[in-house]
Amino acid sequence: MVETTRHTIDTSGQGDVHDLTAIVPRVLSASSIKSGLLTVAVVGSTAGITTIEFEPGAVADLNRVYEQLAPRDGEYEHHLRWGDDNGSSHVRAAMLGPSISIPFDRGRLCVGTWQQIVLVEFDTRPRSREVVVQLIGEAV
Amino acid sequence: MVETTRHTIDTSGQGDVHDLTAIVPRVLSASSIKSGLLTVAVVGSTAGITTIEFEPGAVADLNRVYEQLAPRDGEYEHHLRWGDDNGSSHVRAAMLGPSISIPFDRGRLCVGTWQQIVLVEFDTRPRSREVVVQLIGEAV
Amino acid sequence: MVETTRHTIDTSGQGDVHDLTAIVPRVLSASSIKSGLLTVAVVGSTAGITTIEFEPGAVADLNRVYEQLAPRDGEYEHHLRWGDDNGSSHVRAAMLGPSISIPFDRGRLCVGTWQQIVLVEFDTRPRSREVVVQLIGEAV
Repeated sequence: MVETTRHTIDTSGQGDVHDLTAIVPRVLSASSIKSGLLTVAVVGSTAGITTIEFEPGAVADLNRVYEQLAPRDGEYEHHLRWGDDNGSSHVRAAMLGPSISIPFDRGRLCVGTWQQIVLVEFDTRPRSREVVVQLIGEAV
Repeated sequence: MVETTRHTIDTSGQGDVHDLTAIVPRVLSASSIKSGLLTVAVVGSTAGITTIEFEPGAVADLNRVYEQLAPRDGEYEHHLRWGDDNGSSHVRAAMLGPSISIPFDRGRLCVGTWQQIVLVEFDTRPRSREVVVQLIGEAV
Repeated sequence: MVETTRHTIDTSGQGDVHDLTAIVPRVLSASSIKSGLLTVAVVGSTAGITTIEFEPGAVADLNRVYEQLAPRDGEYEHHLRWGDDNGSSHVRAAMLGPSISIPFDRGRLCVGTWQQIVLVEFDTRPRSREVVVQLIGEAV
Protein backbone atom coordinates (compact mmCIF):
# COMPACT_ATOMS: atom_id res chain seq x y z
CA MET A 1 0.00 0.00 0.00
CA VAL A 2 1.23 3.45 -0.96
CA GLU A 3 -0.23 6.83 -0.06
CA THR A 4 1.22 10.06 -1.44
CA THR A 5 0.01 13.52 -0.42
CA ARG A 6 1.23 16.96 -1.40
CA HIS A 7 1.36 20.05 0.79
CA THR A 8 2.27 23.68 0.17
CA ILE A 9 4.43 25.65 2.58
CA ASP A 10 5.27 29.30 2.09
CA THR A 11 8.71 30.26 3.34
CA SER A 12 10.37 33.63 3.94
CA GLY A 13 13.74 32.68 2.42
CA GLN A 14 17.14 31.49 3.62
CA GLY A 15 17.19 30.34 7.22
CA ASP A 16 13.45 29.81 7.49
CA VAL A 17 12.95 26.40 9.12
CA HIS A 18 9.42 24.98 9.23
CA ASP A 19 8.26 22.38 11.71
CA LEU A 20 6.22 19.83 9.75
CA THR A 21 4.49 18.53 12.87
CA ALA A 22 1.26 20.14 11.69
CA ILE A 23 1.36 17.93 8.58
CA VAL A 24 3.14 14.64 9.20
CA PRO A 25 1.29 13.22 12.23
CA ARG A 26 -2.05 14.22 10.67
CA VAL A 27 -1.23 12.31 7.48
CA LEU A 28 -0.15 9.33 9.54
CA SER A 29 -3.22 9.20 11.78
CA ALA A 30 -5.60 9.70 8.83
CA SER A 31 -4.08 6.79 6.89
CA SER A 32 -5.06 3.14 6.96
CA ILE A 33 -1.36 2.28 6.61
CA LYS A 34 -0.21 1.61 10.14
CA SER A 35 3.31 0.17 9.81
CA GLY A 36 5.90 1.05 7.22
CA LEU A 37 8.18 3.81 5.98
CA LEU A 38 7.33 7.52 5.90
CA THR A 39 9.22 9.69 3.43
CA VAL A 40 9.11 13.49 3.41
CA ALA A 41 10.60 15.20 0.34
CA VAL A 42 10.76 18.82 -0.79
CA VAL A 43 10.58 19.49 -4.53
CA GLY A 44 13.44 21.70 -5.74
CA SER A 45 17.21 22.05 -5.40
CA THR A 46 17.46 24.89 -2.85
CA ALA A 47 15.76 23.41 0.23
CA GLY A 48 16.19 20.35 2.41
CA ILE A 49 14.50 18.06 4.92
CA THR A 50 15.96 16.89 8.24
CA THR A 51 15.07 16.51 11.92
CA ILE A 52 16.00 18.87 14.74
CA GLU A 53 14.81 19.83 18.19
CA PHE A 54 12.60 22.61 16.91
CA GLU A 55 13.37 25.56 19.15
CA PRO A 56 14.71 28.96 18.02
CA GLY A 57 18.16 28.47 19.57
CA ALA A 58 18.99 25.19 17.81
CA VAL A 59 17.58 26.54 14.54
CA ALA A 60 19.74 29.69 14.80
CA ASP A 61 22.81 27.53 15.54
CA LEU A 62 22.15 25.37 12.47
CA ASN A 63 21.78 28.45 10.27
CA ARG A 64 24.99 29.97 11.63
CA VAL A 65 27.03 26.83 10.86
CA TYR A 66 25.61 26.65 7.32
CA GLU A 67 26.49 30.35 6.89
CA GLN A 68 30.10 29.60 7.87
CA LEU A 69 30.20 26.58 5.58
CA ALA A 70 28.69 28.24 2.49
CA PRO A 71 28.28 32.00 3.14
CA ARG A 72 25.33 33.67 1.46
CA ASP A 73 27.50 36.56 0.21
CA GLY A 74 30.39 34.35 -0.89
CA GLU A 75 31.54 33.99 -4.48
CA TYR A 76 29.89 31.17 -6.42
CA GLU A 77 30.38 30.08 -10.02
CA HIS A 78 26.65 29.46 -10.13
CA HIS A 79 26.16 33.25 -9.85
CA LEU A 80 28.36 33.95 -12.85
CA ARG A 81 26.40 31.48 -14.95
CA TRP A 82 22.86 32.61 -14.26
CA GLY A 83 23.09 35.99 -12.57
CA ASP A 84 21.53 34.27 -9.56
CA ASP A 85 22.51 35.03 -5.98
CA ASN A 86 21.69 31.63 -4.52
CA GLY A 87 24.88 29.62 -4.96
CA SER A 88 24.98 29.15 -1.18
CA SER A 89 21.47 27.67 -1.37
CA HIS A 90 22.41 25.07 -3.96
CA VAL A 91 25.51 23.98 -2.06
CA ARG A 92 23.76 23.69 1.31
CA ALA A 93 20.78 21.84 -0.19
CA ALA A 94 22.99 19.32 -2.02
CA MET A 95 24.91 18.65 1.22
CA LEU A 96 21.77 18.14 3.32
CA GLY A 97 19.55 16.34 0.81
CA PRO A 98 15.92 16.89 -0.21
CA SER A 99 14.28 14.02 1.68
CA ILE A 100 14.15 11.90 4.82
CA SER A 101 12.72 8.43 5.43
CA ILE A 102 11.65 7.35 8.93
CA PRO A 103 9.99 4.06 9.97
CA PHE A 104 6.62 4.00 11.71
CA ASP A 105 5.12 1.06 13.57
CA ARG A 106 1.48 0.53 14.61
CA GLY A 107 0.71 4.19 13.96
CA ARG A 108 3.71 5.66 15.76
CA LEU A 109 6.58 7.41 14.01
CA CYS A 110 10.01 6.34 15.29
CA VAL A 111 11.22 9.78 16.40
CA GLY A 112 11.93 11.24 19.82
CA THR A 113 9.80 13.71 21.76
CA TRP A 114 12.25 16.53 21.04
CA GLN A 115 12.82 15.60 17.41
CA GLN A 116 10.73 17.29 14.71
CA ILE A 117 10.82 16.75 10.96
CA VAL A 118 11.54 20.14 9.40
CA LEU A 119 11.73 21.84 6.03
CA VAL A 120 14.91 23.94 5.78
CA GLU A 121 14.63 26.79 3.28
CA PHE A 122 18.01 27.66 1.79
CA ASP A 123 16.90 29.89 -1.09
CA THR A 124 17.63 33.60 -0.84
CA ARG A 125 14.04 34.63 -1.58
CA PRO A 126 10.62 33.57 -0.28
CA ARG A 127 9.37 30.39 -1.93
CA SER A 128 6.14 28.46 -2.08
CA ARG A 129 7.36 24.90 -1.43
CA GLU A 130 5.76 21.64 -2.43
CA VAL A 131 6.35 19.02 0.25
CA VAL A 132 5.51 15.39 -0.53
CA VAL A 133 4.62 13.00 2.29
CA GLN A 134 4.52 9.34 1.33
CA LEU A 135 3.59 6.28 3.37
CA ILE A 136 4.52 2.77 2.21
CA GLY A 137 3.46 -0.19 4.29
CA GLU A 138 0.63 -2.31 5.61
CA ALA A 139 -2.54 -1.93 7.66
CA VAL A 140 -1.23 -3.66 10.80
CA MET B 1 5.65 -7.06 3.97
CA VAL B 2 7.11 -4.93 6.76
CA GLU B 3 9.34 -5.95 9.66
CA THR B 4 10.39 -3.49 12.34
CA THR B 5 12.79 -4.34 15.16
CA ARG B 6 14.23 -2.19 17.93
CA HIS B 7 17.70 -2.40 19.41
CA THR B 8 19.45 -0.65 22.28
CA ILE B 9 23.00 0.64 22.00
CA ASP B 10 24.83 2.30 24.87
CA THR B 11 27.24 5.01 23.78
CA SER B 12 29.99 6.87 25.62
CA GLY B 13 29.13 10.33 24.23
CA GLN B 14 30.28 12.62 21.44
CA GLY B 15 32.52 10.95 18.90
CA ASP B 16 31.49 7.40 19.78
CA VAL B 17 30.77 5.64 16.48
CA HIS B 18 29.17 2.17 16.62
CA ASP B 19 29.42 -0.38 13.85
CA LEU B 20 25.93 -1.86 13.42
CA THR B 21 27.26 -4.94 11.63
CA ALA B 22 26.40 -7.01 14.70
CA ILE B 23 22.73 -6.05 14.24
CA VAL B 24 21.85 -5.33 10.61
CA PRO B 25 23.00 -8.52 8.81
CA ARG B 26 21.47 -10.64 11.58
CA VAL B 27 18.08 -8.95 11.16
CA LEU B 28 18.35 -9.41 7.40
CA SER B 29 19.28 -13.09 7.48
CA ALA B 30 16.60 -13.90 10.09
CA SER B 31 13.84 -12.29 8.01
CA SER B 32 11.63 -13.88 5.39
CA ILE B 33 11.82 -10.60 3.45
CA LYS B 34 14.54 -11.18 0.91
CA SER B 35 14.37 -8.18 -1.47
CA GLY B 36 13.47 -4.63 -0.60
CA LEU B 37 14.58 -1.56 1.33
CA LEU B 38 16.36 -1.59 4.70
CA THR B 39 16.08 1.53 6.84
CA VAL B 40 18.13 2.17 9.97
CA ALA B 41 17.03 5.09 12.17
CA VAL B 42 18.16 6.38 15.55
CA VAL B 43 15.52 7.91 17.81
CA GLY B 44 16.52 11.39 19.06
CA SER B 45 17.93 14.66 17.75
CA THR B 46 21.58 14.35 18.83
CA ALA B 47 22.77 11.28 16.93
CA GLY B 48 22.92 10.17 13.30
CA ILE B 49 23.24 7.19 10.99
CA THR B 50 25.59 6.88 8.00
CA THR B 51 28.07 4.48 6.41
CA ILE B 52 31.84 4.59 6.72
CA GLU B 53 34.81 2.26 6.42
CA PHE B 54 34.77 1.37 10.09
CA GLU B 55 38.38 1.66 11.19
CA PRO B 56 39.69 3.97 13.95
CA GLY B 57 41.52 6.30 11.55
CA ALA B 58 38.54 7.16 9.35
CA VAL B 59 36.33 7.52 12.43
CA ALA B 60 38.82 9.93 14.05
CA ASP B 61 39.00 11.93 10.81
CA LEU B 62 35.22 12.23 10.66
CA ASN B 63 35.06 13.40 14.27
CA ARG B 64 37.79 15.98 13.69
CA VAL B 65 35.98 17.51 10.70
CA TYR B 66 32.70 17.68 12.68
CA GLU B 67 34.63 19.35 15.52
CA GLN B 68 35.91 22.02 13.12
CA LEU B 69 32.45 22.48 11.64
CA ALA B 70 30.53 22.75 14.92
CA PRO B 71 33.01 22.82 17.84
CA ARG B 72 31.86 21.23 21.07
CA ASP B 73 33.01 24.21 23.13
CA GLY B 74 31.65 26.82 20.72
CA GLU B 75 28.88 29.27 21.60
CA TYR B 76 25.39 28.07 20.80
CA GLU B 77 22.06 29.80 21.31
CA HIS B 78 20.66 26.41 22.28
CA HIS B 79 22.87 26.57 25.41
CA LEU B 80 21.42 29.91 26.49
CA ARG B 81 17.90 28.58 26.17
CA TRP B 82 18.16 25.37 28.13
CA GLY B 83 21.43 25.50 30.04
CA ASP B 84 22.47 22.54 27.88
CA ASP B 85 25.98 22.06 26.53
CA ASN B 86 25.06 20.08 23.45
CA GLY B 87 24.42 22.72 20.79
CA SER B 88 27.17 21.15 18.69
CA SER B 89 25.31 17.82 18.92
CA HIS B 90 22.06 19.25 17.59
CA VAL B 91 23.76 21.01 14.68
CA ARG B 92 25.83 17.99 13.63
CA ALA B 93 22.85 15.61 13.92
CA ALA B 94 20.58 17.87 11.85
CA MET B 95 23.26 18.09 9.14
CA LEU B 96 23.86 14.33 8.99
CA GLY B 97 20.30 13.07 9.48
CA PRO B 98 18.87 10.37 11.76
CA SER B 99 18.36 7.58 9.22
CA ILE B 100 19.65 5.78 6.15
CA SER B 101 17.87 3.57 3.60
CA ILE B 102 19.76 0.95 1.58
CA PRO B 103 18.35 -1.56 -0.92
CA PHE B 104 18.84 -5.31 -0.46
CA ASP B 105 18.32 -7.96 -3.09
CA ARG B 106 17.92 -11.73 -2.60
CA GLY B 107 19.22 -11.46 0.95
CA ARG B 108 22.23 -9.27 0.19
CA LEU B 109 22.54 -5.65 1.31
CA CYS B 110 23.84 -3.34 -1.44
CA VAL B 111 26.93 -2.08 0.40
CA GLY B 112 30.63 -2.58 -0.19
CA THR B 113 33.00 -4.82 1.76
CA TRP B 114 34.60 -1.81 3.45
CA GLN B 115 31.35 0.02 4.10
CA GLN B 116 29.61 -0.40 7.45
CA ILE B 117 26.35 1.13 8.64
CA VAL B 118 27.18 3.07 11.81
CA LEU B 119 25.49 4.97 14.61
CA VAL B 120 27.27 8.29 15.21
CA GLU B 121 26.78 9.63 18.74
CA PHE B 122 26.93 13.43 18.82
CA ASP B 123 25.60 14.07 22.33
CA THR B 124 28.03 15.31 24.96
CA ARG B 125 27.10 12.63 27.49
CA PRO B 126 26.67 8.83 27.36
CA ARG B 127 23.28 7.81 25.97
CA SER B 128 21.28 4.64 25.70
CA ARG B 129 20.15 4.77 22.06
CA GLU B 130 17.15 3.15 20.46
CA VAL B 131 17.99 2.06 16.93
CA VAL B 132 15.14 0.96 14.64
CA VAL B 133 15.83 -1.46 11.79
CA GLN B 134 13.02 -1.84 9.27
CA LEU B 135 12.72 -4.10 6.25
CA ILE B 136 10.08 -3.46 3.55
CA GLY B 137 9.83 -5.82 0.63
CA GLU B 138 8.99 -9.28 -0.60
CA ALA B 139 10.00 -12.89 0.00
CA VAL B 140 11.88 -13.37 -3.27
CA MET C 1 6.35 -5.03 -5.66
CA VAL C 2 10.11 -4.50 -5.71
CA GLU C 3 12.41 -3.93 -8.67
CA THR C 4 16.17 -3.64 -8.25
CA THR C 5 18.55 -2.83 -11.10
CA ARG C 6 22.31 -2.31 -11.13
CA HIS C 7 24.24 0.12 -13.28
CA THR C 8 27.94 0.81 -13.78
CA ILE C 9 29.32 4.34 -13.96
CA ASP C 10 32.97 5.08 -14.60
CA THR C 11 34.23 8.18 -12.81
CA SER C 12 37.41 10.21 -13.16
CA GLY C 13 38.00 10.69 -9.42
CA GLN C 14 37.35 13.31 -6.76
CA GLY C 15 34.99 16.05 -7.84
CA ASP C 16 33.46 14.09 -10.71
CA VAL C 17 29.68 14.49 -10.41
CA HIS C 18 27.47 12.36 -12.67
CA ASP C 19 23.93 13.25 -13.61
CA LEU C 20 21.89 10.04 -13.31
CA THR C 21 19.11 11.39 -15.53
CA ALA C 22 20.18 8.95 -18.22
CA ILE C 23 19.40 6.07 -15.86
CA VAL C 24 16.69 6.93 -13.34
CA PRO C 25 13.81 8.10 -15.57
CA ARG C 26 14.46 5.18 -17.94
CA VAL C 27 14.17 2.68 -15.08
CA LEU C 28 10.99 4.39 -13.91
CA SER C 29 9.27 4.48 -17.28
CA ALA C 30 10.22 0.87 -18.06
CA SER C 31 8.76 -0.42 -14.78
CA SER C 32 5.24 -1.61 -14.09
CA ILE C 33 5.55 0.00 -10.63
CA LYS C 34 3.90 3.39 -11.00
CA SER C 35 3.63 4.78 -7.45
CA GLY C 36 6.07 4.28 -4.62
CA LEU C 37 9.56 5.05 -3.41
CA LEU C 38 12.67 5.22 -5.59
CA THR C 39 16.02 4.67 -3.90
CA VAL C 40 19.39 5.30 -5.54
CA ALA C 41 22.46 3.97 -3.72
CA VAL C 42 26.13 3.80 -4.60
CA VAL C 43 28.09 0.80 -3.36
CA GLY C 44 31.26 1.83 -1.47
CA SER C 45 32.39 4.26 1.22
CA THR C 46 34.02 6.99 -0.89
CA ALA C 47 31.10 8.26 -2.99
CA GLY C 48 27.66 9.70 -2.34
CA ILE C 49 24.25 10.37 -3.85
CA THR C 50 22.32 13.64 -3.68
CA THR C 51 20.36 16.07 -5.87
CA ILE C 52 21.62 19.32 -7.36
CA GLU C 53 20.86 21.65 -10.24
CA PHE C 54 23.26 19.91 -12.58
CA GLU C 55 25.23 22.73 -14.19
CA PRO C 56 29.02 23.17 -14.03
CA GLY C 57 28.87 26.24 -11.78
CA ALA C 58 26.84 24.66 -8.96
CA VAL C 59 28.92 21.48 -9.20
CA ALA C 60 32.16 23.47 -8.91
CA ASP C 61 30.74 25.36 -5.91
CA LEU C 62 29.83 22.11 -4.17
CA ASN C 63 33.30 20.70 -4.77
CA ARG C 64 34.94 23.86 -3.46
CA VAL C 65 32.97 23.78 -0.20
CA TYR C 66 33.80 20.08 0.32
CA GLU C 67 37.47 20.92 -0.34
CA GLN C 68 37.35 23.57 2.41
CA LEU C 69 35.56 21.19 4.76
CA ALA C 70 37.83 18.16 4.25
CA PRO C 71 40.81 19.17 2.07
CA ARG C 72 42.20 16.51 -0.22
CA ASP C 73 45.78 17.21 0.85
CA GLY C 74 44.97 17.51 4.56
CA GLU C 75 46.32 15.15 7.21
CA TYR C 76 44.14 12.13 7.93
CA GLU C 77 44.65 9.29 10.36
CA HIS C 78 43.20 7.00 7.71
CA HIS C 79 46.33 7.69 5.61
CA LEU C 80 48.66 6.61 8.40
CA ARG C 81 46.78 3.35 8.79
CA TRP C 82 46.62 2.16 5.23
CA GLY C 83 49.04 4.32 3.26
CA ASP C 84 45.96 5.56 1.39
CA ASP C 85 45.51 9.15 0.27
CA ASN C 86 41.73 9.23 0.39
CA GLY C 87 40.91 10.28 3.96
CA SER C 88 39.09 13.31 2.56
CA SER C 89 36.95 10.93 0.47
CA HIS C 90 35.87 8.85 3.46
CA VAL C 91 34.97 11.91 5.53
CA ARG C 92 32.98 13.62 2.76
CA ALA C 93 31.15 10.40 1.83
CA ALA C 94 30.17 9.67 5.44
CA MET C 95 28.82 13.22 5.82
CA LEU C 96 26.77 13.10 2.60
CA GLY C 97 25.58 9.50 2.70
CA PRO C 98 25.51 6.77 0.03
CA SER C 99 21.82 6.85 -0.91
CA ILE C 100 18.73 8.93 -1.52
CA SER C 101 15.03 7.99 -1.49
CA ILE C 102 12.46 10.03 -3.44
CA PRO C 103 8.73 9.34 -3.84
CA PHE C 104 7.16 8.88 -7.27
CA ASP C 105 3.46 9.00 -8.08
CA ARG C 106 1.68 7.73 -11.21
CA GLY C 107 4.97 7.47 -13.06
CA ARG C 108 6.34 10.88 -12.06
CA LEU C 109 9.30 11.37 -9.75
CA CYS C 110 8.73 14.11 -7.14
CA VAL C 111 11.67 16.32 -8.11
CA GLY C 112 11.89 19.77 -9.66
CA THR C 113 12.79 20.63 -13.24
CA TRP C 114 16.18 21.91 -12.14
CA GLN C 115 16.90 19.10 -9.70
CA GLN C 116 18.89 16.09 -10.87
CA ILE C 117 19.86 12.98 -8.91
CA VAL C 118 23.64 12.76 -9.06
CA LEU C 119 26.49 10.45 -8.12
CA VAL C 120 29.25 12.40 -6.36
CA GLU C 121 32.66 10.75 -6.66
CA PHE C 122 34.86 11.58 -3.67
CA ASP C 123 37.66 9.04 -4.20
CA THR C 124 41.05 10.35 -5.28
CA ARG C 125 41.34 7.95 -8.22
CA PRO C 126 39.04 6.91 -11.07
CA ARG C 127 36.51 4.29 -10.01
CA SER C 128 34.03 2.02 -11.70
CA ARG C 129 30.92 2.55 -9.55
CA GLU C 130 28.00 0.25 -9.02
CA VAL C 131 24.80 2.26 -8.65
CA VAL C 132 21.66 0.47 -7.46
CA VAL C 133 18.24 1.82 -8.42
CA GLN C 134 15.32 0.30 -6.54
CA LEU C 135 11.58 0.87 -6.92
CA ILE C 136 9.13 -0.23 -4.22
CA GLY C 137 5.44 0.33 -4.74
CA GLU C 138 2.35 -0.58 -6.69
CA ALA C 139 1.09 -0.60 -10.28
CA VAL C 140 -1.30 2.33 -9.92
